[in-house]
Amino acid sequence: MRTGVTAILPHGGNLFREKVPGAVFIGNAFGKLAGSTQVNELGEIETPVTLTSTLNVPRVADAVIDYMLALPGNEDVQSINPLVGETNDGYLNDIRGRHAGREEVFLAIRNARGGAVEEGCVGAGTGTIAFGFKGGIGTSSRKLPPSLGGYTVGVLVQTNFGGILTINGAPVGRELGRYYLKEELETKSSTNPGLANNPDGSIIIVIATDAPIDHRNLQRLAARSMMGLARTGAAGSNGSGDYAIAFSTANDLRIRSAANSRNQKPAAALLSNDTMSPLFLAVIEATEEAIYNSLFRATTMTGRGHTIEALPINQTLEILRKHGALGH
Amino acid sequence: MRTGVTAILPHGGNLFREKVPGAVFIGNAFGKLAGSTQVNELGEIETPVTLTSTLNVPRVADAVIDYMLALPGNEDVQSINPLVGETNDGYLNDIRGRHAGREEVFLAIRNARGGAVEEGCVGAGTGTIAFGFKGGIGTSSRKLPPSLGGYTVGVLVQTNFGGILTINGAPVGRELGRYYLKEELETKSSTNPGLANNPDGSIIIVIATDAPIDHRNLQRLAARSMMGLARTGAAGSNGSGDYAIAFSTANDLRIRSAANSRNQKPAAALLSNDTMSPLFLAVIEATEEAIYNSLFRATTMTGRGHTIEALPINQTLEILRKHGALGH
Amino acid sequence: MRTGVTAILPHGGNLFREKVPGAVFIGNAFGKLAGSTQVNELGEIETPVTLTSTLNVPRVADAVIDYMLALPGNEDVQSINPLVGETNDGYLNDIRGRHAGREEVFLAIRNARGGAVEEGCVGAGTGTIAFGFKGGIGTSSRKLPPSLGGYTVGVLVQTNFGGILTINGAPVGRELGRYYLKEELETKSSTNPGLANNPDGSIIIVIATDAPIDHRNLQRLAARSMMGLARTGAAGSNGSGDYAIAFSTANDLRIRSAANSRNQKPAAALLSNDTMSPLFLAVIEATEEAIYNSLFRATTMTGRGHTIEALPINQTLEILRKHGALGH
Amino acid sequence: MRTGVTAILPHGGNLFREKVPGAVFIGNAFGKLAGSTQVNELGEIETPVTLTSTLNVPRVADAVIDYMLALPGNEDVQSINPLVGETNDGYLNDIRGRHAGREEVFLAIRNARGGAVEEGCVGAGTGTIAFGFKGGIGTSSRKLPPSLGGYTVGVLVQTNFGGILTINGAPVGRELGRYYLKEELETKSSTNPGLANNPDGSIIIVIATDAPIDHRNLQRLAARSMMGLARTGAAGSNGSGDYAIAFSTANDLRIRSAANSRNQKPAAALLSNDTMSPLFLAVIEATEEAIYNSLFRATTMTGRGHTIEALPINQTLEILRKHGALGH
Repeated sequence: MRTGVTAILPHGGNLFREKVPGAVFIGNAFGKLAGSTQVNELGEIETPVTLTSTLNVPRVADAVIDYMLALPGNEDVQSINPLVGETNDGYLNDIRGRHAGREEVFLAIRNARGGAVEEGCVGAGTGTIAFGFKGGIGTSSRKLPPSLGGYTVGVLVQTNFGGILTINGAPVGRELGRYYLKEELETKSSTNPGLANNPDGSIIIVIATDAPIDHRNLQRLAARSMMGLARTGAAGSNGSGDYAIAFSTANDLRIRSAANSRNQKPAAALLSNDTMSPLFLAVIEATEEAIYNSLFRATTMTGRGHTIEALPINQTLEILRKHGALGH
Repeated sequence: MRTGVTAILPHGGNLFREKVPGAVFIGNAFGKLAGSTQVNELGEIETPVTLTSTLNVPRVADAVIDYMLALPGNEDVQSINPLVGETNDGYLNDIRGRHAGREEVFLAIRNARGGAVEEGCVGAGTGTIAFGFKGGIGTSSRKLPPSLGGYTVGVLVQTNFGGILTINGAPVGRELGRYYLKEELETKSSTNPGLANNPDGSIIIVIATDAPIDHRNLQRLAARSMMGLARTGAAGSNGSGDYAIAFSTANDLRIRSAANSRNQKPAAALLSNDTMSPLFLAVIEATEEAIYNSLFRATTMTGRGHTIEALPINQTLEILRKHGALGH
Repeated sequence: MRTGVTAILPHGGNLFREKVPGAVFIGNAFGKLAGSTQVNELGEIETPVTLTSTLNVPRVADAVIDYMLALPGNEDVQSINPLVGETNDGYLNDIRGRHAGREEVFLAIRNARGGAVEEGCVGAGTGTIAFGFKGGIGTSSRKLPPSLGGYTVGVLVQTNFGGILTINGAPVGRELGRYYLKEELETKSSTNPGLANNPDGSIIIVIATDAPIDHRNLQRLAARSMMGLARTGAAGSNGSGDYAIAFSTANDLRIRSAANSRNQKPAAALLSNDTMSPLFLAVIEATEEAIYNSLFRATTMTGRGHTIEALPINQTLEILRKHGALGH
Repeated sequence: MRTGVTAILPHGGNLFREKVPGAVFIGNAFGKLAGSTQVNELGEIETPVTLTSTLNVPRVADAVIDYMLALPGNEDVQSINPLVGETNDGYLNDIRGRHAGREEVFLAIRNARGGAVEEGCVGAGTGTIAFGFKGGIGTSSRKLPPSLGGYTVGVLVQTNFGGILTINGAPVGRELGRYYLKEELETKSSTNPGLANNPDGSIIIVIATDAPIDHRNLQRLAARSMMGLARTGAAGSNGSGDYAIAFSTANDLRIRSAANSRNQKPAAALLSNDTMSPLFLAVIEATEEAIYNSLFRATTMTGRGHTIEALPINQTLEILRKHGALGH
């Protein structure tokens, strides 16, 4: 199989001309995500967010530059900061071949749209493995009640990590016998992740919100997504490259590089620190659920002579029922 | 009631003369922990680690200086970096009175010893609240199998935070009806934490290991403790001051400020990054369990006209049983 | 001699009720500055900024709590984050005696006012040593031209560090023979800083601006102050505790904890990243000049049987003249 | 003209199989340097360090992957972390064309060797501009006396930034009339750096030492290099992407991914914090001098219809003489 590319567009315009507030939180940096340092220095995202496979990052970043340079209005642009995340899908994917590049990037960007997002073994999730089962792309969101502002937090994940799958607290991985044993850790190599019971691997979490918050609180929001990851039973292993990218789509906060670049930004009302707690809870819940969705929507996949099975849904539901972990 | 002080001693000698490798990880810094910046710059801890109540931090730090300056061999010392953590127990404790100082610090340091640690409503845990129940001090540890080095990871927590208590995945807080509603968040003030269903509050996590690891991997270890916190249902709220302190007790890694201060440190073998995953898993599990222990050992406490009830153990066990969350 | 306390007030009101945007940049953290982690998490300063001597930090922090708790309107406050910087003046000052406390803090806060600031051997600068000469408190400022916004950047420094004094590029320290030799480094102890030719020591830099910038750009502004420090010939030694604190006095950016704590902050226009360069240059220049002023205003001081001489001004001017480093 | 690539090899073997301790310090992150987060998480560098032009970073990173995957012994490697720095040379170079790729990278890596390094308008320095003059590649080093360990600190810089050139303290840029005026800042665009009197631009600093220090102290060493940068008159502007990469070549510290990957690293003696000050001073001096060398060795260059003149050496020496800034 060959990995694809997943693209997330903070808005449909020219992102270089209308940047959005953004932040990258680093959970564990055994990963090759490109672009984080500039995002955190300037507090801005200026390209689509793209996801791919580890060794593909440069080719995808180069294609994002192609895309951005070619946009009307960017004829004189000489500096672009592609934001590209990755996980290592070398167990199923011919990772050394680096097959995802310009074509896949342009396709992913052009196909990105609002509304329901395709989940499971698609795009950058085609070859990923989570908890020993087939992982992939998953999404979820939470909307705060009007009394708390009515803001939405949406999460998209690319799941490719180890641990003992826990769903709503139920020990699914343990009961299905699909997890690594500590004793086996001795024989695993972090340069060859992807084995079914290898705790290594990574997750990239992309968080979008319409709440008017900028870099500092976006980074705090991104930090909370790791708590949702933890609730699913992730092992936090050494070989994990766990990054969370957050941005705000609030229209008032766009950084427009128009004539006024030397002036103040227009006045905008930001949320205060005190109002962040419900958003923090929202991102924890949405991340947890997005990870589950990436597993529930994935299908058994074969590549490079290996087969990774999808989560057995009926058995899983049975376990959840047994543990009272369904429906509340 | 009046808060006490909890002290953790990396070893029984003069810590200024024999410092230990250490690190502080910052989960969420709405807190007043003293000493973190020097610990992270130099990678060393040079005093006992002490825990107390928010507004007591300076008095406890001053008493730690008293204690250190008076130690034989420290007659010429002019620089001490006290490492003092805190949580806000102002709902039960007369926090503005700042009653914990020199006497409590000296007592706590002198009483610190190996073996079983007193848990529950003791020392810095006397007035804390977690998940709407009485919190306190809790401990736990994990020992790796000999094939993975046989190292031990011990965790001590001071629990004082909000969320929906989840034990081994079972929704205890929800079933007991003891949690905050998002809708109530509007009326809470982060300057008055400690209310039973207020998600604000903090946790301090202290991690000791005999594994030979220094600052960088100690900080990574400390970062993983937040995953254990997440598994208990913590809300990660804005008002939380969540810090994890980690140190190594490995004898070879002590930094001795003797005659050789201008020479190299003695040769010592450190664990490689690749060997960290089992330690990471150990700290996640031990932190989760230490938090549970802080609740199971706490007793109902009254202070300032308020009463906070202990976790009802029989009911809790019933819930765990119902959810298949006991015994595996 | 006995160290005093220096206090800087972002505004004359109740800082807990009207916090200001703030940031702390850590140049080298062999220091005990209190309060940095919360300031950087929340982006806010909620107390006067105070400076003192190393071992006094807890006593000064405790006194700041006293002061804040007693302010009208703070009767229910249970959480205060004192922001206290220090340098080690143990060569001249009886540092182990920790003589600066409540009285000195209240005095310093009450005496803080706008207009010219007393410089040299005053307050927290009473016993400090810089480049082997008597250091102290120094200030300077730059005002941007109206076309760049007309903003002011003011800097106050507490100088207590080593290196070879360089003024406007002229090698003053070298020509005066007052500097440390690398060969001597072997015999110095970092636990006994303050010796005339010891490169160890620290600087605290406090930066105030009326430019409307918040935490992220304040921290970038603070980072630039280290470039001003470098230009004076500072050695950046291991034992240096170099911190820069920056805040904005822009009225629109005050964080008022009034009834609206659960609402958005009022709309405010922030400067864009692109407008920061002139402010960065301003803080570099003002920091460099403030350091010079701390030396030019200091006087010879004796304490603990040691005497540290002031910079010989006539000789210094002669050297500057010789190197064409005066008047441009 | 077309930018080339500069490569620095920590050693001549297979860097993936024998990684070296490394760190990246971020001075100002308006830049696209690839690989920093993994280097700082794991404390290791596993590829040659390469330098190029801004929009070339992905193509160079992809070529470094090509190179590493093809090395004998790396047949199964599925994860590579290229460490690629850049500056923006779009004023002289056809930056949007991204001409540096596989061929240039392989050539640069194969030509890298010990001994004297070519300086000036070579490799990644072909099109850079510093202080309004032609910049480029510069190098310098310092060797500590035997009594301090006899260690060497070598620095290589890629200079492409603004400010007022100051050499040994002498105001060369001011006297030559080649600097930006603050008033002009209003009309500059940070998306079009490289203009002669534009303060924007970047520097990449690569630091090698044979001192046995690992990630934490390497990062502290890298932080000090910014002090050398400051002494040359750099403006620290918003648009600057200033990164310093440091590694140790100490043979005992190599991280060998051989059979023992699950064991401890071999025992190795590291320098203590207390011994770092002379190394810090060495890197400050070497960085300052390397920047001067990049200017002295550069030659006038024309590209894209623009010409940037080299520093006029005779005039410069005259200015240095006048200010007593030559020969001490």
